[in-house]
Amino acid sequence: MATTTVVSNRRVILKRYVTEFLSEDDMKVVTMEAPPLTVPAGSVAMVVKNLYLSCDPYMRNRMTRHEVPSYIPDFVPGEVLTDNGVMKVMSSGHPDFKAGDLVWGMTGWEEYTLINNPESLTKINHAELPLSYYTGVLGMPGLTAYVGFFEISKPKKGDYVFISAASGAVGQIVGQLAKITGCYVVGSAGSDEKVNLLQTKFSFDDAFNYKKEPYLNVALKRYFPQGIDIYFDNVGGVTLDAVLPNMRLGGRIAACGMISQYNLDCPDGVRNLLYIVTKRLRMEGFLTFDYCSMYSQFEEEMAVYLKEGKIAYIEDVAEGLDAAPTALIGLYTGRNVGKQVVAVSRD
Amino acid sequence: MATTTVVSNRRVILKRYVTEFLSEDDMKVVTMEAPPLTVPAGSVAMVVKNLYLSCDPYMRNRMTRHEVPSYIPDFVPGEVLTDNGVMKVMSSGHPDFKAGDLVWGMTGWEEYTLINNPESLTKINHAELPLSYYTGVLGMPGLTAYVGFFEISKPKKGDYVFISAASGAVGQIVGQLAKITGCYVVGSAGSDEKVNLLQTKFSFDDAFNYKKEPYLNVALKRYFPQGIDIYFDNVGGVTLDAVLPNMRLGGRIAACGMISQYNLDCPDGVRNLLYIVTKRLRMEGFLTFDYCSMYSQFEEEMAVYLKEGKIAYIEDVAEGLDAAPTALIGLYTGRNVGKQVVAVSRD
Repeated sequence: MATTTVVSNRRVILKRYVTEFLSEDDMKVVTMEAPPLTVPAGSVAMVVKNLYLSCDPYMRNRMTRHEVPSYIPDFVPGEVLTDNGVMKVMSSGHPDFKAGDLVWGMTGWEEYTLINNPESLTKINHAELPLSYYTGVLGMPGLTAYVGFFEISKPKKGDYVFISAASGAVGQIVGQLAKITGCYVVGSAGSDEKVNLLQTKFSFDDAFNYKKEPYLNVALKRYFPQGIDIYFDNVGGVTLDAVLPNMRLGGRIAACGMISQYNLDCPDGVRNLLYIVTKRLRMEGFLTFDYCSMYSQFEEEMAVYLKEGKIAYIEDVAEGLDAAPTALIGLYTGRNVGKQVVAVSRD
Repeated sequence: MATTTVVSNRRVILKRYVTEFLSEDDMKVVTMEAPPLTVPAGSVAMVVKNLYLSCDPYMRNRMTRHEVPSYIPDFVPGEVLTDNGVMKVMSSGHPDFKAGDLVWGMTGWEEYTLINNPESLTKINHAELPLSYYTGVLGMPGLTAYVGFFEISKPKKGDYVFISAASGAVGQIVGQLAKITGCYVVGSAGSDEKVNLLQTKFSFDDAFNYKKEPYLNVALKRYFPQGIDIYFDNVGGVTLDAVLPNMRLGGRIAACGMISQYNLDCPDGVRNLLYIVTKRLRMEGFLTFDYCSMYSQFEEEMAVYLKEGKIAYIEDVAEGLDAAPTALIGLYTGRNVGKQVVAVSRD
């Protein structure tokens, strides 16, 4: 591998801090000189070739400059974007990895990345499944769904579960885990095509297009005459506000993300929080990183579900790095159907 | 006792459902015929003389008509208000109680009340302490503080604790329990007199008058440069919104009440909920009724704290039923200093 000659490295950089809706002008695809594809003797670093990159809603939050540091560093204008990806090891100074290994974890939005902390990466144990799944159902979004549902939402058989952005990377998995658990599951999404997927492919009990429901509060009453035990919140804002009066006593809200809010300079005001008191609700945020020790258990369980066809999974794959900025922006307009992935290289 | 002749019974009734700020016109003090002071043979009911009545912020919520029933029934126009009180048993058909017993629990805002479910009442074990304390520090507000702090907020020694409406019935007790636990405690209140009480009488580490802080978010940064681990929320609204960015990772918000919101037709919009995701916060409502089994343990522990002077307690006592409506309204304007009580009769 060390004899491969690579002269250039395409990468996606942040052009400037973003304050409003993310646009193409905020990012740029540039060509840099490639890093040497062999690591120097004595280094524990690693050079990887990026195969698949994940597009995740939280990336928008990293493009805003935070006065108080968030749980993850802000992106810096001029520097390459980073997120989880699936990679092939080109050369490794780290004893746990060797050239040719397939791994997943944090990498750059570029063709080749020098990884200085290879211990942050995870080896792929099920290469017989599509490798891109490790950006989604077998990666961070899958673990997020698993942790957010089982650890945070504490489901019981028969619980009424509502999921927003339900056809997205996390939502589609939460819904199917809820069905496996014996819950009644309804999801919302932003197009009839997505609603149809939820009903047919992902076996939700019901689903609706929120853009066709002028009174979300009323729609939720119709779909949940008994009320909602678990709300898996991927969107925040007005949807959260409409859900609160429809929660049952002792209900749980897993605060996974608030995609409707990331592009707003002034977030929506949520007015129905008094229901947290009167209905004794628990609303809880969580960070999947805190549950990394559960990954192995999760990977094996999910691989079985996928092979047995108990969990279906849909990806929206953009081809090539040049398509990455548009793919990322599409998350916030709801353009993607299923988990958004960028295929940088297929080998 | 059965020979006492009582011909009239003064009571406070709700005149109409309330939609805006509670006013004197929404309630009325009327004179009714008294109930017979002896219960009929064979009945398990009880007649009590009301000594002290509690004024609690949540009463306002019961004056609004709820389409979907809340956790406690709405008040009905024309009928007597009810809330917790301290009572003397006049006559009892229930085997667990006899004339002369001192009890606390749900009663009417009137001189004499017929209690059809005496098992809902609790005998007073520490009559050597002021009886009115059983409307507050030894009653429901005390148990609320105890449960909300220890069971919901899960405090650790050294935690940074912020309490709103901190000189109120619940807040003053939470703050002192937090000090006993070894926390750093700051409270907010609506007058310099109350702030002074927090600093001197209740031994808070610090306190401030929120009416003198034009930027609450900035004030909280000043009082908590390290951030807040536990927010005990009695007010909701803009205070909650200012607290959210100041919470520490993994912080807890005990949603005890939202007094700033009860009189608003359209509640404040809370915009900073994304911090629940990014800071992995848990916000949880609770109902003290759910923890009644902890009452005996609580009563004994609190009685010791009071006798040893480890917990100080301040009441604001209004004299006589005629003063009750004004006393209740005063809760929402912050007129009361300490727990608001109505003394109907002192023996």
